[in-house]
Amino acid sequence: MKIGIIGLGTVGEGVLKILALENKNIKLKSGADLEVKYACDLNIDREFSFDFDKAILTQDYKKILSDPEIDIVVELIGGETIAKNIIMEALNNKKHVITANKALVAKYGPEIISAAKDNCSLFLYEAAVGGGIPIITPMIENLIANQITEIRGIMNGTSNYILTKMKEDKLDFEEALHLAAEMGYAEADPSYDVDGIDAGHKIAILSSLAYGGYINFSEVYLQGIRDISLVDIFEAEKLGFSIKLIASSKINEDKLVEISAEPILLKNEKLLSNVNDVYNAIEVTGSYTGKTLFYGKGAGMEPTASAVISDIVKIATDSVINSNFFFDTKSHLETVDTNKLKHEFYIRTSKDFDLEASALELYEEIDNYYIIIAENISRNELDETFANVKEKLIIKII
Amino acid sequence: MKIGIIGLGTVGEGVLKILALENKNIKLKSGADLEVKYACDLNIDREFSFDFDKAILTQDYKKILSDPEIDIVVELIGGETIAKNIIMEALNNKKHVITANKALVAKYGPEIISAAKDNCSLFLYEAAVGGGIPIITPMIENLIANQITEIRGIMNGTSNYILTKMKEDKLDFEEALHLAAEMGYAEADPSYDVDGIDAGHKIAILSSLAYGGYINFSEVYLQGIRDISLVDIFEAEKLGFSIKLIASSKINEDKLVEISAEPILLKNEKLLSNVNDVYNAIEVTGSYTGKTLFYGKGAGMEPTASAVISDIVKIATDSVINSNFFFDTKSHLETVDTNKLKHEFYIRTSKDFDLEASALELYEEIDNYYIIIAENISRNELDETFANVKEKLIIKII
Repeated sequence: MKIGIIGLGTVGEGVLKILALENKNIKLKSGADLEVKYACDLNIDREFSFDFDKAILTQDYKKILSDPEIDIVVELIGGETIAKNIIMEALNNKKHVITANKALVAKYGPEIISAAKDNCSLFLYEAAVGGGIPIITPMIENLIANQITEIRGIMNGTSNYILTKMKEDKLDFEEALHLAAEMGYAEADPSYDVDGIDAGHKIAILSSLAYGGYINFSEVYLQGIRDISLVDIFEAEKLGFSIKLIASSKINEDKLVEISAEPILLKNEKLLSNVNDVYNAIEVTGSYTGKTLFYGKGAGMEPTASAVISDIVKIATDSVINSNFFFDTKSHLETVDTNKLKHEFYIRTSKDFDLEASALELYEEIDNYYIIIAENISRNELDETFANVKEKLIIKII
Repeated sequence: MKIGIIGLGTVGEGVLKILALENKNIKLKSGADLEVKYACDLNIDREFSFDFDKAILTQDYKKILSDPEIDIVVELIGGETIAKNIIMEALNNKKHVITANKALVAKYGPEIISAAKDNCSLFLYEAAVGGGIPIITPMIENLIANQITEIRGIMNGTSNYILTKMKEDKLDFEEALHLAAEMGYAEADPSYDVDGIDAGHKIAILSSLAYGGYINFSEVYLQGIRDISLVDIFEAEKLGFSIKLIASSKINEDKLVEISAEPILLKNEKLLSNVNDVYNAIEVTGSYTGKTLFYGKGAGMEPTASAVISDIVKIATDSVINSNFFFDTKSHLETVDTNKLKHEFYIRTSKDFDLEASALELYEEIDNYYIIIAENISRNELDETFANVKEKLIIKII
C-alpha cells in the first residue's frame, strides 16, 4: 500500500514518525505492507527528530493526488477549504482517504461520504474523535448487534483542562485559559475549544455514525464555558457536582435526536466527573451492552497519529466494516429543539432579577449573585424569565 | 454464513435471541448474512422468551461439527473437557470457532490456536474478557501501531461487587458473597471469582494477545479476596485507598512479564478505584496512546452475547486482523517471580507477631491486629517475617 501524507503539522509529523519507526512491527502484527511514498508540507526544509528517506518530501500535493500508485491519501492539513478540495479530489481519483479533521467531517460529512461511496473508496476518521482513544471502530464493530441509544462524553481536552484547573487550583477562567495556552493545549483562537464547537463537531460525527442517518451540525445546541466563574465551580462542589463540558446525544423512539455540547453539572459519583486534565472519555449506551465507556488522551501528536495509523492498517488489511447505515448521507436525522425541553438547571443571576415576582426559589446568595436551582423548566422559559437581568449563567444539571 | 450454536445457557440463549431479533439490522449495518442453522443443548424442550424456528434445535452437537454447510461454530457450553473437544474438532473440520470460555483460552490457548492456524480457521473470543466491553478488538486493531507495555483492570464483576458491598454497606466477606449469590452474580462454587482465578484467566489472555507470545497460566500470581475483612476496607479508606481485585501485567525491556490477579490498595483518585458493583474496567498502556481505558458490564446474558455476535460479524465480513503475533503459540513469554519483587505492602497481622524484633514500623493497632505499611520489601521477605504468626493478610499498594 502506497501512502501520501498531506500536512506535516503535529499529527502529520507523528504519523510519518511512527510509520518510520514501526513499519516492521506493523507488518508483523497485521501483514500490512505500508510505504509512505510522499510526505507533503509547505515547510520541508526543517529538521526532523527521526530518520526517514527525505526524498519522499514534497511541497506539491497535486503530485500525490494524481499519482496512480497512491492508494491512501492522509489529509492532515486541517482547515475547511484546501483540505476539503484535497479530500474530494483524492476520492474522485479513487483513492482511499483518512483524516483527523473533525470540523470537515461534521460539516461536510454527507458530501464527502457520498463522494467516497460513488467512487467505491473508503473515508475513515477514527482520529477525528477522541484522539488516541479507540471509539469509532469499537462503536461500529463491537456494538454492531446493538441499537445505540445515547452517547455522552468529555470530548474536548482543552476545556476539560481549564475546568480542572479552575476547580483544583482556584484559577479563574482567564487564568486557566492562559495556562492552557502555555501548556500548548489551547490555540491562539481558543473559541473552538471553549465555545463547545469542537466538542459539538465530535458528537455530531459520533451521532451520525450511531443512529443511521446524519446530523446537520448547525442543529447541535452549543454552549461554551467562558461565563463559568469560580463561584459556580464552588457552588457546584458544595452541591456534590462537578462542572464538565459534555457533548451528548440521544435518540428517542420517534427517531428524534437531542444533541448538544454544553457545560453540565454532573454528580461527583459519575465516572465522567472524575475525568480530569486533558483526558477525554466517551460513554456509549447500547441496547444490549448497556453503558460502555472509552477513556484516554483525546489529543496530542502520538495518540492521534496512532489512531490515523489504525485506519491505514484497516484499509491495508481490507478489514473495514462498511455500509450505508453509518453516516447515512440519504437520511437527515431530525433534532429536537433543546430549548423547549424541561430539565433541572443551575442558575446564577445578578441581583437585579426580581426574585419575589418569580416562582423560583432562592438556593443561596453569594457575592452579588442569586444562586437558583430550578426544576422541570425549559431554556425558553428561563430565557424569558431572565430576559432583562444584567448577568446570568444557566447550566443544565444531570 | 451458517452458524451452529452449541450450549444454550445464559450466553448461548442470549446469542440466539439477539440474532433472532437483530438479524435484519445486522445485515443492514454490516452486510453480513447470518443464519443460525443449529442451536444445540441437552435441554431443548423448554420455553424460550423469543420467537425462532424451533426446527434448528438439536441435542446432537456432532451433527453441527460434521455438517459441511456450517461455517462458524459458537461454543458456549463452558467447562474444559467436552468444550475443548468440540472446539478442536470444529477447527479440524475447517470451521471458524467463537467462544466466551476464558478458562479454556487461558489454559489451552496455544494448543487451540495452533489447530486454528493449521486449518486456516479463525478462533475468536472477544466475549471471554470484559463481557460486553470492547477490549480485544480495540487492543489489537486500534492500538496496532503501539507496543503495549502494561494492562491493568478490574476483570471480575463478582469480586468487585463483593468488595463494593463490603465498603458501601459494611458487610463482611461472607455476607457480601451471600448477597452476590442471591443477585445471581456468584456461582454455587465461587472460587473462580473470589480466588482470582477468573481474573487471572483474563489477564493471561490479554497479555498473550498484547506481548507477542503466550503466557503459561500457571505462572500467573493469584491471590483472592476471602481473607479481606471490614477492618482492611476501613483502614484502606482512612489511608485514601480502595481495595480492588486487580488483574495486571507489564512487560519489561528484557521481555519478562510481571503478571498477577490480586487484591490491591489503590489510591482513590485513580479511575479504577471508582469502578464499582459488577462493572469491569481495563486499562491498556500503549507506547504512543499512553493509557486508554475501557469500561462497562463485564458479564450478563446480553452484553456477553453482544460480544459473541461482534466476532461472528467480523468473520462474516472477513474483517479480522490476524497474524502469528497475537497469542504467538511458538513463543513462551517468560514471567518474573513476583514474590521476589519489592513493593509497598499493607499488612494486617495478629498480635503474636514480634513487632519489636522486626524492622517494621507499626502504623496502627486495631482490634486484635497490628496494621503495618512496609515499603521496598518483597513477598518472600514478608512471608519469612510473618511465617509463624497466627493470622496475616498482605496486600500490595499502588
